[in-house]
Amino acid sequence: MEISGRTAIWAILADPVAHVRTPQGLNALLRRRGVDGVLIPMHVRGPDLAQVVAGLRGVQNLKGFIVTVPHKPAMADLCDEISEEARAVHAVNAVRREADGRLVGGILDGHGFVAGLRREGIEPSGRSAYLAGSGGAASAIAFALAGAGVTRLTIANRTRAKAEDLCRRMRAAFPKLAAEIGDTDPGGHELVVNGTSLGLRPGDPYPLDVDRLTPDQIVVEVIMDPETTPLLAAARDRGCRTQLGLPMLECQLDLMADFMEMR
Amino acid sequence: MEISGRTAIWAILADPVAHVRTPQGLNALLRRRGVDGVLIPMHVRGPDLAQVVAGLRGVQNLKGFIVTVPHKPAMADLCDEISEEARAVHAVNAVRREADGRLVGGILDGHGFVAGLRREGIEPSGRSAYLAGSGGAASAIAFALAGAGVTRLTIANRTRAKAEDLCRRMRAAFPKLAAEIGDTDPGGHELVVNGTSLGLRPGDPYPLDVDRLTPDQIVVEVIMDPETTPLLAAARDRGCRTQLGLPMLECQLDLMADFMEMR
Repeated sequence: MEISGRTAIWAILADPVAHVRTPQGLNALLRRRGVDGVLIPMHVRGPDLAQVVAGLRGVQNLKGFIVTVPHKPAMADLCDEISEEARAVHAVNAVRREADGRLVGGILDGHGFVAGLRREGIEPSGRSAYLAGSGGAASAIAFALAGAGVTRLTIANRTRAKAEDLCRRMRAAFPKLAAEIGDTDPGGHELVVNGTSLGLRPGDPYPLDVDRLTPDQIVVEVIMDPETTPLLAAARDRGCRTQLGLPMLECQLDLMADFMEMR
Repeated sequence: MEISGRTAIWAILADPVAHVRTPQGLNALLRRRGVDGVLIPMHVRGPDLAQVVAGLRGVQNLKGFIVTVPHKPAMADLCDEISEEARAVHAVNAVRREADGRLVGGILDGHGFVAGLRREGIEPSGRSAYLAGSGGAASAIAFALAGAGVTRLTIANRTRAKAEDLCRRMRAAFPKLAAEIGDTDPGGHELVVNGTSLGLRPGDPYPLDVDRLTPDQIVVEVIMDPETTPLLAAARDRGCRTQLGLPMLECQLDLMADFMEMR
């Protein structure tokens, strides 16, 4: 579809942005739906986020935008209205711009993550999960896993205070869940999830102690580029079943498109 | 070319924006040049311009933007640096965003306009011209016509003070030019140019008194959509040679692309 003066705009805000796959996914969806619109990448650094978002309020044909690492927590404070779940995880990854410039935020990461697992035949209900990370994506996944029926959730984060904060919020929202603080050892959990950005850049350390992985575990990645992160490669070496980050994105695309009113 | 996280962004800021043709023209140019980049329309209202521009400074992969009606004069004050000609006409229609966020503005309307006339075999040198309008586009055309050798220039504008201001600036920059204030009567000039936005919207009044047009005159339009404005239709009825706004845009595309470093 050719871009004209009548074309509606969507964006994805990230830092870095080169690795994101959302433009390809959502532009294909726009074409399939026959929408005269385009989604573009915007490379925005943390200190510039508030100013860029203020500017986007004034772009009348901008209908919404996706927000990803590292902006999801900050975006929760920049919206005029956010969903209940976004408030609980204090993170936003999809924003709808209303006609008057008001910004409405939601968090779809967790729903997409669980939908991705289920599409691959992995049912979280009744299982025990280890989660590396306590940022925006990790928080959304924690809430979605608990909502999907995980019985025990161990949260590990380099900054322990952030893990404790997430743990507290999980216990408040899901009183029956056994939510605990963990260390780098993922042993004893059926699902092992990387919810950090470690693995995105060459030379990143592992997000967890891969030597403690056992073949009965399923290791799930949120990172999409590289497709096979060092964590996934190490997990396969140890005989674990692995799940790429991509299905999570694919399952999230329709959720994002509906939230941002791509029609 | 598919849009990915690595795609560079350019934009056009206008109000209204639906009628602009620059996206089609410059996206085709980007494809011809093999640049991984895309130009998108941004509908920005006057009171929001400063805030939107401040936001665009923080978009690292935004390389530049085109500015059109009604933002050209205001944009001259929002850049960090503008060309000598942009300062003279107090208008900017092309902005290059440098890597550190600095905005460098230029005005290419006038050069494109004269190049468009010459491509159609119309040489302004030695001729007399009537110009309706004193805004950004009209000012740029006035300077370019004078630079191309027009000997007499009559400027007419609904707000007379703006015409007087442009006339003063023309006399200062071109001491040999016979620059005068005119009324709605274009009689007695070889070139008759519409440099206003009248004709863009259905029901707009004519920008000048079409009953005074004579068959020896060449009537030139800056408006591109509709292709044939009511002014051009009336001029043809009266036997005038007419020139569409489109050649001016076409001749300007390469100038814009080079200024905004589309490579």
